[in-house]
Amino acid sequence: MKRLGILLSGRGSNFLAIARAIREQHLLGAKIAVVLSNVEDAPGLASARELGLPAFAIPSAGRKRADHDAEMLARLHQHKVDLICLAGYMRIITPEFVRAFPNRILNIHPSLLPAFPGLDAQRQALEYGAKVSGCTVHFVDQEVDHGIIILQKTVEVKEDDTVETLSARILEHEHVAYSEALARVLSGEYIVQGRRYVHRDAARPSRATAR
Amino acid sequence: MKRLGILLSGRGSNFLAIARAIREQHLLGAKIAVVLSNVEDAPGLASARELGLPAFAIPSAGRKRADHDAEMLARLHQHKVDLICLAGYMRIITPEFVRAFPNRILNIHPSLLPAFPGLDAQRQALEYGAKVSGCTVHFVDQEVDHGIIILQKTVEVKEDDTVETLSARILEHEHVAYSEALARVLSGEYIVQGRRYVHRDAARPSRATAR
Repeated sequence: MKRLGILLSGRGSNFLAIARAIREQHLLGAKIAVVLSNVEDAPGLASARELGLPAFAIPSAGRKRADHDAEMLARLHQHKVDLICLAGYMRIITPEFVRAFPNRILNIHPSLLPAFPGLDAQRQALEYGAKVSGCTVHFVDQEVDHGIIILQKTVEVKEDDTVETLSARILEHEHVAYSEALARVLSGEYIVQGRRYVHRDAARPSRATAR
Repeated sequence: MKRLGILLSGRGSNFLAIARAIREQHLLGAKIAVVLSNVEDAPGLASARELGLPAFAIPSAGRKRADHDAEMLARLHQHKVDLICLAGYMRIITPEFVRAFPNRILNIHPSLLPAFPGLDAQRQALEYGAKVSGCTVHFVDQEVDHGIIILQKTVEVKEDDTVETLSARILEHEHVAYSEALARVLSGEYIVQGRRYVHRDAARPSRATAR
């Protein structure tokens, strides 16, 4: 049973979707060990407590990033977390943090990366005039919205979409995508080749043995 | 009846798909007025002649870009071309050329722009580990692979894809996408809002009159 640590700064709707998937046994082999937030009054913390999950605020305002991250890490280790899910965690984590959980921190981004990284991805897609967008679940590395991609889902951009309608439609897909991506990771059957995350049965021979 | 000018450098498989769509009356209101290539022995030129279409090589090798583009433009005007379709035209066109046909030059690119612009888009997508790619039909502006998007189609990147298998699958979608995009343009019913290309019925009131 893998132990998940959830990091959030707001409602944590992706956290709630993961919790539901576990509760309804759509996502097997995982439990949520702890929910942390850098924002004291994040609604997601209250939701976690209602679900009976350990939930802690570790406020980041006014603190050095390294100090804050060290406290977060200590708490994650204390709860024996195997895998971290960022769920609307609005803070860049330090390289030390990433190194402590190599390819074991997941994030979800509301675009088809590498298109539209950074803030306001849905607005970016609309203003660019993209006809399709979506969401990407990826491992976190030391560059923003850049790590190895676990899964992507596409969402049509409709001609009458606003930022709000497009964001809402992408969010529905995020809720499904995050659990599906977690299932891939938890299966232990996927491997990283270069930047490609593939099922071991589809993996090609390494360069050394390739024809 | 709008008159199309096709520019190609190779086989021109997208040109052949457009020609077929016109012949089979899937694409109405357009005819191919002339096919031009910067490559003397481009197979697409021979195909054009077999179809009875005016086809000319205007070799670019060793010539100044401005001189070559001027000769291309003269030929396009001579054939009273309304709309230009780049179909594997492996040459950057000059700003003067773009200005001569504002939002009347179409190109197709084998990725979901703005992801993976430039050469070898399919290889870029594979090496990035994207789980989805596709193709984009767009108007040509003065930046490479940047103009307003008319239409995009998505293609799943499979775990066992190679550059060849992914490229072949995207190409099938290109052949459909180009004609569909042309139909949108030829309909006269689409307008540009910012960078968004939308049916006039879906267009929102201009900022001045928006609530």
